[in-house]
Amino acid sequence: MMNNDNNSNNRFASIFLNGIYPPLPTPFNEKGEIDPSKLVRNIDFLNRFNLRGYVLLGSNGESVMLTNGEKIALTHTVRSILPPGKLLIVGTGCQSTLETIMLNQEIYKVGADVALVITPSFYKAQMTNEALINHYMTIADESPIPILIYNMPANTGIDMDAETICAVAQHPNVIGIKDSSGNVAKLGAIRNTMGTGFQVLAGSAGFLLPALSVGAVGGIMALANIAPGECIEIQRLFSEGKIKDAQNIQVNLIPLNTAVTSKWGVAALKTAMDNIGLYGGPVRGPLLPLSSDQKKILNSIINMTGLKKV
Amino acid sequence: MMNNDNNSNNRFASIFLNGIYPPLPTPFNEKGEIDPSKLVRNIDFLNRFNLRGYVLLGSNGESVMLTNGEKIALTHTVRSILPPGKLLIVGTGCQSTLETIMLNQEIYKVGADVALVITPSFYKAQMTNEALINHYMTIADESPIPILIYNMPANTGIDMDAETICAVAQHPNVIGIKDSSGNVAKLGAIRNTMGTGFQVLAGSAGFLLPALSVGAVGGIMALANIAPGECIEIQRLFSEGKIKDAQNIQVNLIPLNTAVTSKWGVAALKTAMDNIGLYGGPVRGPLLPLSSDQKKILNSIINMTGLKKV
Amino acid sequence: MMNNDNNSNNRFASIFLNGIYPPLPTPFNEKGEIDPSKLVRNIDFLNRFNLRGYVLLGSNGESVMLTNGEKIALTHTVRSILPPGKLLIVGTGCQSTLETIMLNQEIYKVGADVALVITPSFYKAQMTNEALINHYMTIADESPIPILIYNMPANTGIDMDAETICAVAQHPNVIGIKDSSGNVAKLGAIRNTMGTGFQVLAGSAGFLLPALSVGAVGGIMALANIAPGECIEIQRLFSEGKIKDAQNIQVNLIPLNTAVTSKWGVAALKTAMDNIGLYGGPVRGPLLPLSSDQKKILNSIINMTGLKKV
Amino acid sequence: MMNNDNNSNNRFASIFLNGIYPPLPTPFNEKGEIDPSKLVRNIDFLNRFNLRGYVLLGSNGESVMLTNGEKIALTHTVRSILPPGKLLIVGTGCQSTLETIMLNQEIYKVGADVALVITPSFYKAQMTNEALINHYMTIADESPIPILIYNMPANTGIDMDAETICAVAQHPNVIGIKDSSGNVAKLGAIRNTMGTGFQVLAGSAGFLLPALSVGAVGGIMALANIAPGECIEIQRLFSEGKIKDAQNIQVNLIPLNTAVTSKWGVAALKTAMDNIGLYGGPVRGPLLPLSSDQKKILNSIINMTGLKKV
Repeated sequence: MMNNDNNSNNRFASIFLNGIYPPLPTPFNEKGEIDPSKLVRNIDFLNRFNLRGYVLLGSNGESVMLTNGEKIALTHTVRSILPPGKLLIVGTGCQSTLETIMLNQEIYKVGADVALVITPSFYKAQMTNEALINHYMTIADESPIPILIYNMPANTGIDMDAETICAVAQHPNVIGIKDSSGNVAKLGAIRNTMGTGFQVLAGSAGFLLPALSVGAVGGIMALANIAPGECIEIQRLFSEGKIKDAQNIQVNLIPLNTAVTSKWGVAALKTAMDNIGLYGGPVRGPLLPLSSDQKKILNSIINMTGLKKV
Repeated sequence: MMNNDNNSNNRFASIFLNGIYPPLPTPFNEKGEIDPSKLVRNIDFLNRFNLRGYVLLGSNGESVMLTNGEKIALTHTVRSILPPGKLLIVGTGCQSTLETIMLNQEIYKVGADVALVITPSFYKAQMTNEALINHYMTIADESPIPILIYNMPANTGIDMDAETICAVAQHPNVIGIKDSSGNVAKLGAIRNTMGTGFQVLAGSAGFLLPALSVGAVGGIMALANIAPGECIEIQRLFSEGKIKDAQNIQVNLIPLNTAVTSKWGVAALKTAMDNIGLYGGPVRGPLLPLSSDQKKILNSIINMTGLKKV
Repeated sequence: MMNNDNNSNNRFASIFLNGIYPPLPTPFNEKGEIDPSKLVRNIDFLNRFNLRGYVLLGSNGESVMLTNGEKIALTHTVRSILPPGKLLIVGTGCQSTLETIMLNQEIYKVGADVALVITPSFYKAQMTNEALINHYMTIADESPIPILIYNMPANTGIDMDAETICAVAQHPNVIGIKDSSGNVAKLGAIRNTMGTGFQVLAGSAGFLLPALSVGAVGGIMALANIAPGECIEIQRLFSEGKIKDAQNIQVNLIPLNTAVTSKWGVAALKTAMDNIGLYGGPVRGPLLPLSSDQKKILNSIINMTGLKKV
Repeated sequence: MMNNDNNSNNRFASIFLNGIYPPLPTPFNEKGEIDPSKLVRNIDFLNRFNLRGYVLLGSNGESVMLTNGEKIALTHTVRSILPPGKLLIVGTGCQSTLETIMLNQEIYKVGADVALVITPSFYKAQMTNEALINHYMTIADESPIPILIYNMPANTGIDMDAETICAVAQHPNVIGIKDSSGNVAKLGAIRNTMGTGFQVLAGSAGFLLPALSVGAVGGIMALANIAPGECIEIQRLFSEGKIKDAQNIQVNLIPLNTAVTSKWGVAALKTAMDNIGLYGGPVRGPLLPLSSDQKKILNSIINMTGLKKV
């Protein structure tokens, strides 16, 4: 196992990702159009917390529902309202290598700091390790900003293994990975191979503390939109060795996290945001709004979790 | 089981899909740009056969690699060169319901006859039967041309079941399904519920004859690009009750079909087209060209199958 | 592709499997004990039909719920009551190679004609093609009766591919396969490689006609316990080239077949047997009896199918 | 979420599972027969470490390859040589509810402390949550010793969810779960619902530290056969809040753990045991011994891990 803690080739070595990031939902009005003013209000709230930055156009941002024009405009808007020091990570991964490269250049021009590139997945049988490595290497070669790999098997049906991730991680422009698989043994394997030079972010609040225990430096998690303080607190307590205290917060968050991710997804996250005083609003089809029964269950989970109103 | 052989509400009842369709690969030049002249040449060859029509922008058309602009332009070009009577089916299914509706309107304007709508798949856990039905019903309501469902679980990870398909099939603008799952018992179940008013097309040459045996009216199959005569002959022999003769052609095609679909996909289909004198050309990344070893194996399979040169 | 229509090495070449076989459920009384007298009665009914033989101790026989002692005794009983000319195929596949070999010898002594050997599956990650080939070759070497491979991915999670099946099929003691995957393209591939010297049986009535269309010689199917005449008629009509007539029977059987196989399994098959006047009786745990709602739905499907009472 | 930290109904409340357990491989001689003397020698070595106890007849014990007679005899032998205070957990889960109940009674008679009951899995489509709950509740009712649920989706294809596990956990005779899924968010959800009254054991060394971070009380792990000291040390450091030190040991163990579990399984574990001076010996078919290439890679991983010789 090679250990390259000191990777002097890394153009982006100065970008430390340590910390918590909410993947911002894209706010639509009742006509289904993006309403940037709602996003401004949500970010105003989130800015009160010690978040490391924001992720735009991830799975929770309904990225696959947006045109490239909408994506670039939204990135521009958010950059313009972010306080200094907050990282802006933007999802750009498309099915096509070339389209991803083009989008990386466009979002760089409007102020993105890091491009989050989800695995292509349509031609599953052809997405061999070789094809994935070639895809990421080509993109990293052409990108004006650093690349964060995004592994999200529940949505893509593609699960990059540790060896393939570490192969891509050799590229100096690839600074880390958001892994939503929940496979923490894999995160530990990456840590073992790469040392601290490659930054791992947990992709869900459901396993933040376990991921930190094997070397993750933070996380990008839906729950950080509605429970930012709790997510930050888990990491703070962990870094101080107060594991039992971190554990109590961690396990308390899991039912709500499950509800707004694997169980009901973005529609539930938006409903929860509406519930606590942020703007959630409608989802774009084919996603459906929660049924009234689902809303009742969600509300009771929110109450049980003790989520604070804005 | 409801049997609606006489669906008088169907605006598009006059569109009979019976027959064989090649899903046309999109020809790129060495720079990765679309070269429509190559497609014209390929279609010239295919026009010699008694094909029912053509499918543009399916999985073999690398639809997910194309911009909407490229899609509309390509449809326009192909329509302009098709002889009268050939159906033009065009893939328009996107992850977003609204974007699919928009594309349906655009391709209708440039001459498409039928829209082929693949299941949305990114938010897998939320793609309940209810969400899928709502997606297709909304699209069918708004479409100026009839809809053909496209079920392709190997690529999407979503497999519509017979009950959901039959629910969508109630819509008068939904005239049939291309099913690539290979689950012929499901095709028989659809036939049993819907009678002959809803048209099933096999999605691969690997199970054309079995699909016909349970009521399919034809097929859309990669192999029809390189072995159109054989595919047509299977259906002709079947319709004459000459099953043993049909079977001999059918089983002989399977190894080549596997190579250009599930095993190596579009890159193999394009290589085979180059091999027999058509234009295949390169694929767009993240798809990779075949290795030289893979090409050798493919060529020997082509020879064993006895594929004719153009 | 090698074609060995004339496999002169085959010790068992004279065993022609052509035809339909019901996989007999094991009858338990209310205490959960095997009651052989019930099986005798069921077989009396089935003997009125032109079935090629019977399968004992398959998935529908709840083989995994029985001790080896029960298996051997049951085989002995059934052999003693079968009319001459009926083949007796007995399931013997265990997780262990050696235990399977031992069982093959035991059931041979009490009169079994053919051993049905399901793929081992517990150590899934280690069940490579090499391990499967070695397992079957070792068993075939030691077996006093011919081997029928049993591929049942829905239960085992293991799906033997065409190449692995054809490798095992080289052994002269391996005379065929029961394939329950429903992947008829694979059956066609086996037919293409092996010619007619290796006998394929469909593993479910849901795809009997499609399987026949690509060269299957019959089938082993739960539905043959309750609709033996219909299953036999499909094969007869197929062999006479009357595909449309066969198709009508085929598609009509699919909803009932789904109910007693993939949907509710053995408990539904036994309930249907009780319903038409045969003995079904209880299942062994962890299988559960049908709920009263499930029974109502099943009965309505039975009526819709037009199943005849005994 | 109910919290029953004080479950006064629990007959077995005094059995604290906290700690590390090796799942002992079953030693076969070259003829494939069990050689208990080899097991005695291996246990002599393991007794030098502060292990909480031993697991017999788990997946690593090739339980599915053994007859019930072999299982009972082996349990008797091991009990007779264990020092006082070491827990003896024995795998008894069969496909049949009744057979599992019978085995529980037999192993109790020969000295087992706890029965480890894997999920039944053959009739996958029928293994609903209701069926699983009924299976475990029936077994727990009849068992003379406490039950430990064993969830092992990689081998069984069945993955019990948190809600189903917590439903079974209501039974006073069910004291905990060994979960090998690696889904630590689920472990946290169980901890959140059940409090500390239900004991969770990690099922693999690959995620021991992450599992402890969400409330697991120890682990049953193949690696504890060859690296018992390291596994114990991870838990000791964790309990003292020395997470960074625990992390270093944890991530260093992952490549070796992967090799002897998901990658190559029991054969690799036995080879590694032979390598360090314990008795591994052959596996039973259909498992295959490692190839010489695999052995070389395994040896280099053992060296890299710094595993100590006996």
